[in-house]
Amino acid sequence: MKRIAVLTSGGDAPGMNAAIRAVVEQGIHHGLEVYGVYYGYRGLVEGDFRLLTLSDVHHNIRRGGTMLYSARYPEFKHKEYQEKAISQLEKFGIDALVVIGGDGSFAGALSLSKLGFPAVGIPGTIDNDIPGTEYTIGFDSAVSVALDAIDKISDTAASHNRTFVVEVMGRHAGDIAIWAGVAAGADAIIIPEEEFLIEDVVRRTEAGRSAGKDYSLVVLAEGAMDVDNFVEQFQILAPDQSVRGVTLSHIQRGGTPTARDRVFATLMGARSVDLLIEGQKAIYLGVREEQLTVFDIVETLEKTEHQVRQDLFQLNQKLTDRGN
Amino acid sequence: MKRIAVLTSGGDAPGMNAAIRAVVEQGIHHGLEVYGVYYGYRGLVEGDFRLLTLSDVHHNIRRGGTMLYSARYPEFKHKEYQEKAISQLEKFGIDALVVIGGDGSFAGALSLSKLGFPAVGIPGTIDNDIPGTEYTIGFDSAVSVALDAIDKISDTAASHNRTFVVEVMGRHAGDIAIWAGVAAGADAIIIPEEEFLIEDVVRRTEAGRSAGKDYSLVVLAEGAMDVDNFVEQFQILAPDQSVRGVTLSHIQRGGTPTARDRVFATLMGARSVDLLIEGQKAIYLGVREEQLTVFDIVETLEKTEHQVRQDLFQLNQKLTDRGN
Amino acid sequence: MKRIAVLTSGGDAPGMNAAIRAVVEQGIHHGLEVYGVYYGYRGLVEGDFRLLTLSDVHHNIRRGGTMLYSARYPEFKHKEYQEKAISQLEKFGIDALVVIGGDGSFAGALSLSKLGFPAVGIPGTIDNDIPGTEYTIGFDSAVSVALDAIDKISDTAASHNRTFVVEVMGRHAGDIAIWAGVAAGADAIIIPEEEFLIEDVVRRTEAGRSAGKDYSLVVLAEGAMDVDNFVEQFQILAPDQSVRGVTLSHIQRGGTPTARDRVFATLMGARSVDLLIEGQKAIYLGVREEQLTVFDIVETLEKTEHQVRQDLFQLNQKLTDRGN
Amino acid sequence: MKRIAVLTSGGDAPGMNAAIRAVVEQGIHHGLEVYGVYYGYRGLVEGDFRLLTLSDVHHNIRRGGTMLYSARYPEFKHKEYQEKAISQLEKFGIDALVVIGGDGSFAGALSLSKLGFPAVGIPGTIDNDIPGTEYTIGFDSAVSVALDAIDKISDTAASHNRTFVVEVMGRHAGDIAIWAGVAAGADAIIIPEEEFLIEDVVRRTEAGRSAGKDYSLVVLAEGAMDVDNFVEQFQILAPDQSVRGVTLSHIQRGGTPTARDRVFATLMGARSVDLLIEGQKAIYLGVREEQLTVFDIVETLEKTEHQVRQDLFQLNQKLTDRGN
Repeated sequence: MKRIAVLTSGGDAPGMNAAIRAVVEQGIHHGLEVYGVYYGYRGLVEGDFRLLTLSDVHHNIRRGGTMLYSARYPEFKHKEYQEKAISQLEKFGIDALVVIGGDGSFAGALSLSKLGFPAVGIPGTIDNDIPGTEYTIGFDSAVSVALDAIDKISDTAASHNRTFVVEVMGRHAGDIAIWAGVAAGADAIIIPEEEFLIEDVVRRTEAGRSAGKDYSLVVLAEGAMDVDNFVEQFQILAPDQSVRGVTLSHIQRGGTPTARDRVFATLMGARSVDLLIEGQKAIYLGVREEQLTVFDIVETLEKTEHQVRQDLFQLNQKLTDRGN
Repeated sequence: MKRIAVLTSGGDAPGMNAAIRAVVEQGIHHGLEVYGVYYGYRGLVEGDFRLLTLSDVHHNIRRGGTMLYSARYPEFKHKEYQEKAISQLEKFGIDALVVIGGDGSFAGALSLSKLGFPAVGIPGTIDNDIPGTEYTIGFDSAVSVALDAIDKISDTAASHNRTFVVEVMGRHAGDIAIWAGVAAGADAIIIPEEEFLIEDVVRRTEAGRSAGKDYSLVVLAEGAMDVDNFVEQFQILAPDQSVRGVTLSHIQRGGTPTARDRVFATLMGARSVDLLIEGQKAIYLGVREEQLTVFDIVETLEKTEHQVRQDLFQLNQKLTDRGN
Repeated sequence: MKRIAVLTSGGDAPGMNAAIRAVVEQGIHHGLEVYGVYYGYRGLVEGDFRLLTLSDVHHNIRRGGTMLYSARYPEFKHKEYQEKAISQLEKFGIDALVVIGGDGSFAGALSLSKLGFPAVGIPGTIDNDIPGTEYTIGFDSAVSVALDAIDKISDTAASHNRTFVVEVMGRHAGDIAIWAGVAAGADAIIIPEEEFLIEDVVRRTEAGRSAGKDYSLVVLAEGAMDVDNFVEQFQILAPDQSVRGVTLSHIQRGGTPTARDRVFATLMGARSVDLLIEGQKAIYLGVREEQLTVFDIVETLEKTEHQVRQDLFQLNQKLTDRGN
Repeated sequence: MKRIAVLTSGGDAPGMNAAIRAVVEQGIHHGLEVYGVYYGYRGLVEGDFRLLTLSDVHHNIRRGGTMLYSARYPEFKHKEYQEKAISQLEKFGIDALVVIGGDGSFAGALSLSKLGFPAVGIPGTIDNDIPGTEYTIGFDSAVSVALDAIDKISDTAASHNRTFVVEVMGRHAGDIAIWAGVAAGADAIIIPEEEFLIEDVVRRTEAGRSAGKDYSLVVLAEGAMDVDNFVEQFQILAPDQSVRGVTLSHIQRGGTPTARDRVFATLMGARSVDLLIEGQKAIYLGVREEQLTVFDIVETLEKTEHQVRQDLFQLNQKLTDRGN
């Protein structure tokens, strides 16, 4: 093996640059040339490749976003585009590919592997919603940004004795809501995976006020309910509370990655190169019980569902049930 | 003079606690007792007063929000409520009052002064929209939070070559938009004080792209136009751009105050005590040409309009006019 | 069981307040009264107890340090002091105790348990150096602060093409150095647990420069070597490099706790109350393979050594070995 | 005028990149080509020039340090080196130069101007110690970093009832100490410009403790006294206090620049281009009474001394004099 390439695909996530840097460092350590593919699968098909050096990547370990850019490219599900990509890769003499992205992006890696071109995946998405792995690059950073925003809102909520409903990202997965909500001491956390009653949420906030809290906080995953709708219904049930809704939206994607995201991104980036050298393909990396773990793309994505940490969710349910 | 009191009114702003702490420190330095009035003018009328000690305030210098809480209380414009407030103050043997808040809050201080009870104002509002003074407590912190959020959004905007329209606070004043926009290198800044054409904004972003920028950024003050409406019209004129709107909303009010906000809050808090001891009333403090300045409430609020820094706004207009 | 108490002991760590808050919330959930013991074991002996309410603790979830204060108190190893503590606890009608601190603090909990008073431990120390558990409260926050400082130093290091040797906390444990070092992309990480040669560190930095890096970074745990001594020896071996040493020191202990620290502190705080209700004693909580785990104080502290994550350390050794 | 160049010299300061970006933007706006000179005056003499485009600079507005690097180069005081620099500039067809740095760097700009090559200065140094101007690029960011560190230390100081003496940068100027100290609520601030007695500092901390503070804080500018020496003498006079010294050192130079630093850097960067086009030389820009101001290099540097804000210093002296 002489040359490998790396691309990022799907939504950007803080820590992707740390993974890219680790692929380059580990490649150089093993005597390989590492090419960056720009704009994800589109760049793969169009041959938008550039040789990466240490000086290209070493500053980026602390930058959010992805230095290789990303792009939507639904065309890649068609075999002709996949074959075009492989001929581009062959033209550059590239032997294997690292794909950093969500589970949608892994489908592309799988297609290439099936056509005989080795490709491995690294989970990069702030939503933490990839089956098999308990961790994805960007999740810890997104939680950190969401929590910082909620802390700021809590200052102002307390000053006016308000109830804030903060919508965080998570269309199908409640992970950001659970972690940020527990960390912020939320009275209630609403996630797509669990049923909820607004009456129950109102009751929790009222119990908190009775117990001496000077504001109330509800953390809502975007996939569970529209925040404006939630606030409207909540207000009807709790006419005495001064209720406000806030959507954190895109700030959660950006910012300097946390230590945890950079460390696991580095571990996975380096390991992905080792796995390609060992001749692996159609796999992706992840974390289970805090250890690096290898997953079969087909086996895992088809057979496994993403699981949120029920213990955290239950903890909060119980903790803020002050029993009136 | 033996006892003074301090209250916060209107929207909370980071640095209010630093002003409260300075009032208490300076009061103690002069041998006075300092009472905190809780929940603004409502607490004043209801007699919600507590003696403040150094241990109550010294940690709060670094906390956002207001430790004395705030509340809406439109009743205070009626004379009977003002007289009730004065009898509460007299019951506690309080001789004078410091009011921290916006220009609306200064009207209350003025009423009390007219009825013979000395009251002075300190400008605390993130919007920086008080006539006379070039600075208000909380403005620098709000700009800092807005800029940090825009920096985060820029990471992700660049990764996808997007155009982001970020709505910041400022119903009538474009100050936050101007400072955050210039600091972030925005392609265009839209403020309520200045006419704008969306065509011109589109042209600027396109010129930026032609000149090599990998994303575009528009900072919009909330009072200028609804962000969703803006994005919709922008998208029609720029169908090739991937445009997103974000509303920063309440996070801008909160968070640890910046050094600048704490320093000027401390200066004004301490000075307000000196002014009350000197027998002043119906005035408020502010900053002109970076120096502490005293303003007459009636004279200034009636005769002066708030001015944004036109030089900053013009700078950005010119800087990002790349002339295509 | 009607009343429990909680204390913090040893060096303060961000997240301790989140644990205290969870003990109070969970206690209230189970219908208990929760007392705070001020100033650690000294306060236990002297009876410095106060009933804690939700309003005392709910804001503190986001504050660093410990709201219950801490103090050195070597006297507590003597039985007479332990018995005095128990009689104070009995005087207040307290049935069980939660101790948040390092392994030294657990010895006190063990003594009380042996004398028949149930006490359980929660690991709170930034050093992450407690046997058995893979995680301690405050560690993630300390890494976050150290990394943020190193990022700042990297900006200036690059501007002058310098080599910085940054000393982080860790007298016996290299964990902070390993995590912050990997996350920062350090050329070398020096920890007390592993031998090192300064020649080898010089070689790594030189290889990095040859490969295009515009600065070099060494992260040194304080227990491995004195930073001034290290810099002096390094400079002799690398006379062409402009080398600087920095000691991060006390800033690493403080600051707003990260989400991870608050979440695990909350999990452990709540669980400790459950365990006391179940009649447990002489145990402490921890995290293994990312799950809450219970450890026997005697068994674990005597028989287990703290292990750093060798995989991370080896990763960096390999990654920055650029082979010249 | 067709081509201009820009360099950074002396110690790096956050916001320098924002100034560089503004020079490039404004240059492009006026139809000029803008060259970056790498490594300060050394690069000027050696001809280390590269044409800068918007894509080179627009991301850097939010990065600390200087993208053009800096270097010590005492040789530049000799005329032969200055003439060599001018011939390099002429070789590239460059008509004028912007120098971003401290007053030492302005001497180089002056020499070039005297030899007929127009050069203007922009004050970039975290120390805020340039005569004439009340503001230098990087100062607000350095205060912000110092304050954030002191806030962190305060958390841990309070937890153990300690006294911390924090040394901040400022060899000859106490500005960082004054701003960070007032903002942090320090019991005492020690600066090189003012005499002090350690007895008086001890007295202030003791008065603070008597008044209910749970920790004490002294902020010391490095130029006033060695921190270890200070702590030693303080400890002898205050044997009951638990005293610790901390040196913040290099972290103060780095980090994302604040809004204020980016805004003034942008104002000055853009204006410097206008001034060169107008035919100015041997001048530098600065801020007086919050307005952009032009200074003659010879006149100002020779005849003016740097002034700290005495009002802030006196404020703190008075505020924390609790009169026991």
